[in-house]
Amino acid sequence: MTATTGFLTAQAARLADDYRRLRATTRTLVDGLDPEVAALQSMPWASPAKWHLAHTSWFFEQFVLRAVRGPAHVPFDDRYATIFNSYYEQVGSAWPREQRGLLARPDLATVRRYREWTDDHMLALLGDDCLPRALAERIELGLHHEQQHQELLLTDLKHLLSLQPDAPAYRARPESVRIAPQGRPSRLRWASCPGGLQKFGAGAAGFAFDAERPRHQRWLDPFLLGERLVTNAEFRQFIEDGGYQRPALWLSEGWSVRTQQGWTAPLYWRGDQPGLHFTLGGLQPIDPDAPVVHVSFYEADAYARWAGARLPTEFEWEAAASQLPVRGPFVESNLLAAPAAPPGPSGRLQQVYGVAWQWTRSAYEPYPGFEPLPGALGEYNGKFMANQYVLRGGSCVTPEGHVRATYRNFFNADARWQFTGIRLAKDCRK
Amino acid sequence: MTATTGFLTAQAARLADDYRRLRATTRTLVDGLDPEVAALQSMPWASPAKWHLAHTSWFFEQFVLRAVRGPAHVPFDDRYATIFNSYYEQVGSAWPREQRGLLARPDLATVRRYREWTDDHMLALLGDDCLPRALAERIELGLHHEQQHQELLLTDLKHLLSLQPDAPAYRARPESVRIAPQGRPSRLRWASCPGGLQKFGAGAAGFAFDAERPRHQRWLDPFLLGERLVTNAEFRQFIEDGGYQRPALWLSEGWSVRTQQGWTAPLYWRGDQPGLHFTLGGLQPIDPDAPVVHVSFYEADAYARWAGARLPTEFEWEAAASQLPVRGPFVESNLLAAPAAPPGPSGRLQQVYGVAWQWTRSAYEPYPGFEPLPGALGEYNGKFMANQYVLRGGSCVTPEGHVRATYRNFFNADARWQFTGIRLAKDCRK
Amino acid sequence: MTATTGFLTAQAARLADDYRRLRATTRTLVDGLDPEVAALQSMPWASPAKWHLAHTSWFFEQFVLRAVRGPAHVPFDDRYATIFNSYYEQVGSAWPREQRGLLARPDLATVRRYREWTDDHMLALLGDDCLPRALAERIELGLHHEQQHQELLLTDLKHLLSLQPDAPAYRARPESVRIAPQGRPSRLRWASCPGGLQKFGAGAAGFAFDAERPRHQRWLDPFLLGERLVTNAEFRQFIEDGGYQRPALWLSEGWSVRTQQGWTAPLYWRGDQPGLHFTLGGLQPIDPDAPVVHVSFYEADAYARWAGARLPTEFEWEAAASQLPVRGPFVESNLLAAPAAPPGPSGRLQQVYGVAWQWTRSAYEPYPGFEPLPGALGEYNGKFMANQYVLRGGSCVTPEGHVRATYRNFFNADARWQFTGIRLAKDCRK
Amino acid sequence: MTATTGFLTAQAARLADDYRRLRATTRTLVDGLDPEVAALQSMPWASPAKWHLAHTSWFFEQFVLRAVRGPAHVPFDDRYATIFNSYYEQVGSAWPREQRGLLARPDLATVRRYREWTDDHMLALLGDDCLPRALAERIELGLHHEQQHQELLLTDLKHLLSLQPDAPAYRARPESVRIAPQGRPSRLRWASCPGGLQKFGAGAAGFAFDAERPRHQRWLDPFLLGERLVTNAEFRQFIEDGGYQRPALWLSEGWSVRTQQGWTAPLYWRGDQPGLHFTLGGLQPIDPDAPVVHVSFYEADAYARWAGARLPTEFEWEAAASQLPVRGPFVESNLLAAPAAPPGPSGRLQQVYGVAWQWTRSAYEPYPGFEPLPGALGEYNGKFMANQYVLRGGSCVTPEGHVRATYRNFFNADARWQFTGIRLAKDCRK
Repeated sequence: MTATTGFLTAQAARLADDYRRLRATTRTLVDGLDPEVAALQSMPWASPAKWHLAHTSWFFEQFVLRAVRGPAHVPFDDRYATIFNSYYEQVGSAWPREQRGLLARPDLATVRRYREWTDDHMLALLGDDCLPRALAERIELGLHHEQQHQELLLTDLKHLLSLQPDAPAYRARPESVRIAPQGRPSRLRWASCPGGLQKFGAGAAGFAFDAERPRHQRWLDPFLLGERLVTNAEFRQFIEDGGYQRPALWLSEGWSVRTQQGWTAPLYWRGDQPGLHFTLGGLQPIDPDAPVVHVSFYEADAYARWAGARLPTEFEWEAAASQLPVRGPFVESNLLAAPAAPPGPSGRLQQVYGVAWQWTRSAYEPYPGFEPLPGALGEYNGKFMANQYVLRGGSCVTPEGHVRATYRNFFNADARWQFTGIRLAKDCRK
Repeated sequence: MTATTGFLTAQAARLADDYRRLRATTRTLVDGLDPEVAALQSMPWASPAKWHLAHTSWFFEQFVLRAVRGPAHVPFDDRYATIFNSYYEQVGSAWPREQRGLLARPDLATVRRYREWTDDHMLALLGDDCLPRALAERIELGLHHEQQHQELLLTDLKHLLSLQPDAPAYRARPESVRIAPQGRPSRLRWASCPGGLQKFGAGAAGFAFDAERPRHQRWLDPFLLGERLVTNAEFRQFIEDGGYQRPALWLSEGWSVRTQQGWTAPLYWRGDQPGLHFTLGGLQPIDPDAPVVHVSFYEADAYARWAGARLPTEFEWEAAASQLPVRGPFVESNLLAAPAAPPGPSGRLQQVYGVAWQWTRSAYEPYPGFEPLPGALGEYNGKFMANQYVLRGGSCVTPEGHVRATYRNFFNADARWQFTGIRLAKDCRK
Repeated sequence: MTATTGFLTAQAARLADDYRRLRATTRTLVDGLDPEVAALQSMPWASPAKWHLAHTSWFFEQFVLRAVRGPAHVPFDDRYATIFNSYYEQVGSAWPREQRGLLARPDLATVRRYREWTDDHMLALLGDDCLPRALAERIELGLHHEQQHQELLLTDLKHLLSLQPDAPAYRARPESVRIAPQGRPSRLRWASCPGGLQKFGAGAAGFAFDAERPRHQRWLDPFLLGERLVTNAEFRQFIEDGGYQRPALWLSEGWSVRTQQGWTAPLYWRGDQPGLHFTLGGLQPIDPDAPVVHVSFYEADAYARWAGARLPTEFEWEAAASQLPVRGPFVESNLLAAPAAPPGPSGRLQQVYGVAWQWTRSAYEPYPGFEPLPGALGEYNGKFMANQYVLRGGSCVTPEGHVRATYRNFFNADARWQFTGIRLAKDCRK
Repeated sequence: MTATTGFLTAQAARLADDYRRLRATTRTLVDGLDPEVAALQSMPWASPAKWHLAHTSWFFEQFVLRAVRGPAHVPFDDRYATIFNSYYEQVGSAWPREQRGLLARPDLATVRRYREWTDDHMLALLGDDCLPRALAERIELGLHHEQQHQELLLTDLKHLLSLQPDAPAYRARPESVRIAPQGRPSRLRWASCPGGLQKFGAGAAGFAFDAERPRHQRWLDPFLLGERLVTNAEFRQFIEDGGYQRPALWLSEGWSVRTQQGWTAPLYWRGDQPGLHFTLGGLQPIDPDAPVVHVSFYEADAYARWAGARLPTEFEWEAAASQLPVRGPFVESNLLAAPAAPPGPSGRLQQVYGVAWQWTRSAYEPYPGFEPLPGALGEYNGKFMANQYVLRGGSCVTPEGHVRATYRNFFNADARWQFTGIRLAKDCRK
């Protein structure tokens, strides 16, 4: 047995552990979910929980099991190649995204069996003496993919539940959504960040998505970052100051969207029940000290302009965040909501990781020298690099271990159903 | 005890029997239905099975129980007044039709409990010594309403199932959907019908919807009616003769709809699997002798023009049908599909009742002297009298006892998901 | 020379006179029109004035000149066969209706030359010794067609001008749009009309559109007709009584349209300048005694329901109107607006012809025994017999000599840009 | 008289000359234009020529004349403040962009008078002894604004004319659109460009739009640029290789747009007349050696991927272009079409300025330290910095003197009606 093989055996063992753990986490998330809640699609951009469950298994079947076995692969069900393919055009046609909610079949029980079938086959593979590196990397990718869908599953469910007449909780555990009133956050202070020629993006070692690479250098002017995220109380001042009525504060497209959609507040704030917003714990009072979440890029940008500031670029964020440990709260905290920052002057950046995704001013573009993954997996990120904005830092429903300083999330500028919040920035000379 | 009360007691007893029987039928229709199949909405015009189940109970709660009890009424759930109100603007706001498929809650089990709760209260009421006539009439209306939704439940389910990747059967009983090849129907023959001044519509006695009244007279010229419905084989000739490609055969709006929708055949014919169509028994060979169904008014009209004929008016149909007994096959036949007419020259009208709804050339308009029901129930029919066409005769999924010679069904001219077929007519002088 | 030929020579002479006169009228209507006003299209259902001018010539070129000459016909411009074809699918493809306003070319001067060219050729033909009857009938049809477009030209121009920032008059002649305050119309009285078996539609003699034929009999119950049209003052009462806010008054589709379009008053009433409406003479005070115009079928129907009445059927209207002389005001009156009825109790029907088209409750359907014209001209009327409502009587911008008791105009139920008003009806027994 | 005033007098004199010259150029562009051609709007993103003519005058009236005179300003027409305001929300409401083609009034003659009135007032102002610097800068901005609209006027006209049935030329001068076959361009060669820390954007001196500032530094890796633009012949190879049918070559949104719009070639290539495209000189043969133009960002990006290359960033382009003189052909060349590059190996960058706007991979984002102009003029650029891509270099219809190395044009990723072409780039390491 060579050193290489030995290394791979160890890697396989770790991968198998990760695989078991992460797949079990997904199961936990849908524990006790009604089949009909799992089947419904609340809007074109959200998917049914059942679909997330099946799609993440399809990803392993398609890119691992089928890749290993080739034509000898006997699929669990032929049709899944189409209906649980999200958007990989190179491996066949995909069921239209906006029709995922038409899928009565397979039912939830069958999808659960599909997951078990996939796990059996995957764990058999992971038990092999020697796992080729390329395959191990695909499995690792599959696990990060699974984590992304864990978060989407929760945000999509939140959207669906918010539309129900009884606004039900996803988890009826009030203690998990109560946000401890530990004292008020201080007035927003600004952390000073140095400029210069710096390195950005992920290096060759360790897991990262293709879009985080290659590591490359950029020049940054010195800048200021808000020490914490913008709070609900602060955002309410924006609203009360006519923020949603003053076109001069908005990007032109943002103003159009606001008008068409009739936005007057963040997504889950209840116009008919002032002071309440919908959470994964049902309708709850809006904590003034908690960060505002469920705002679009357009709203974040308008708020920043109103506040005499701007959004940071993704590189400003990364420069500052790369100095700090990756500490949540993440989904494992079971808060399922974005908590307030600890009170008092901090003198350092808070709420950098977990809590809420932070909109940046940066369009999602390829890094210099970007190379997509080979084959169909090259569709994972690169083909979305148009009309999307980068978000950084993760949120309270991101799985621990999933984000890092170089992690680039991205959404359309009008997306509001993720846990998206606002960190401000300023030029130094201002 | 007065004679009137006695009469009503007997009526209540009959009504109670009818109530029990019809409500049980509805239960049977959804026996074993998966919760997710019951929750999904396949298009804006179709409703989830679960919604049908709840709405028909709401109808009794709203128009009987609440009417009897007034403010003392304690509803099963406050929210149902909105979410299961279909379109009665006078009793409150209604949940948008196209969003019925967003309702994860209540779940199917709760809806079943709602039906039981409704039944308990209704049967208690029906067990009263004396049931006021007005109330008895509303309950009768509610039962006919329930029957309409039994049919819609099946056609809406058919639509949803047809979109599933595995095209599953609603009832996996092959014998029920096999259509016995009893010999070929004869060439279409024409029944000669006399004209003259005739009476149409329902008289004062017996149950009828408001739109069937009052009974009134009209002049008819003599006319010819096709003895049976147009068959799949005949409709295929129309297709092969370029029927879907020749604008001269079509109404102008029909041609636009055809173009926008890309119609090239009846709704459930499979373009990718010629010779097959989707049925409640899954994918099945198209029986050439069975009547063509799932065609719109526009297609029926175009076919008739191609065939050198026309569609009958609703009055021509009624004049002929009122001479005939109301004999199915209806839904109780368990065919769940429109069967071929018996072979051989008949010398009489066939397939008049049951089998397939027959498009007429008549817009759905009020009869002379039409009076809608008082109050919110006046919204049942009258407010739809614009841009709708009348269909007559019932279908293979209409409950027995529901239709009659004066019964007026109506749909938009582009509707195709009902069991809608074609009976031809001609002027005598032609 | 045979009697037949002689007859035709005389007919040709009369036709030639009619031709000259009507074509000159069209020219008068666009006298002094700016080229840019003539080129613009204000909505998909309206056409540029220039297009009307060219299309009416194309009609003669296509159905007369080309028909006579066959392949030897040398068109004025090859492309006109497409761009000025309105909807005759059998003679070739038609430029999309909603893109008529994209046609910068031909310019207005060229279109005028096209009209002259057409007139030269037509008058040469009309000067022939012997004009075949079939051809004479097509020319007569062409002249009635020209008259229809004269009216459309004015109503389409009105719509376009109404959208201009300066709301300019089509004809700046204040005397023509001032409506003489001759005293107030009396309270609405009802004329009693007998029922019975009666004849409707046009007989074989004289010009009529195919849709007016054949003459046939129908049974009518006795009915009441409002002696005059509903006035602006009466319609304002409907508005002030919440007419546009009460769904119970509306047809279901009408309520949807009202909501989507935000209707709160007739089309040209100015929300920002109460008491004014846009007319062909520019912004003018709304005469309370003049008939309300520019209402849709839905609004007319809702008004009638509010008033405890209903719209008449087209047959009720015809039965009453066929007793009366066809007297305007028509477009020749130069009022270009619907004038008030003369004051005082009348004891007879007023405002039957001219003034305003009167919505009927009748869907536009073929008469029993209806036969469209042969060939492409069969597309003139028949193919629009779906989802349209019949209007009767003509309007203040209809050319004199164009309407008659049997004349059936038709529009979609939501159309408002014609001079469409309301005559009420009631059942006798009410 | 102080030196400062003297300087300003000289500046005013130069400005007055520029003003006269540029305004006259605009007049020349619309010389002999039919009023109806000038009035029509071919799509929401294009404006009528008449509107461009009026809007550019409004810009001077609003931001210069009204600014100078304040409340004493007597406008040419009150309504123009709304109808010729493009999008400056801070100075009042703006007529909807997609309804500019509804404006029959003012007519073209009145708009010409409005331009004369504006010129009289502006030239009076420019003749003053002392012109405040801030005002001079606004006038300079107005002149650059006028130049932008000169280009838009031509591209919008091209779009409108392309839709006419006779595909007419804007200028019927065949010599101006014939593209001299001087020999074939060489195979594409790559120019090597050094990386390093470099300065970008406009410095404080001279005119530049706010979005070009401030000058700032960025790091560039070394890169390769295609020496000339991609030719029609090369783009045809992409088409013939299935470029429009292979999703793997496209950005995801680009593929959706392609599918919805049915793109199979650049905008003006005629599917029904292969080898021809529409030009400002009418239908012309596609010169295989001329650069492909009228492609969207999505098509440019897909082509680049197919060619194994990528689009340059705006900074790569600027780094290379800033070394080169700004030499056209611009609109003054009267070509009105993008000409082929001179033949033979060049060893240097060709077609950098003029010819065709070059899509870059860069989203239109604010530069570090970006400050919009104060007041309503701050809406000029900044509010469009979302979902737009930067184009560089100018085109064959850009006025000479308008572009420079730092100039940033921007359009949506699906825009095709500008003269937009493709310059390729590559990483050095590839």
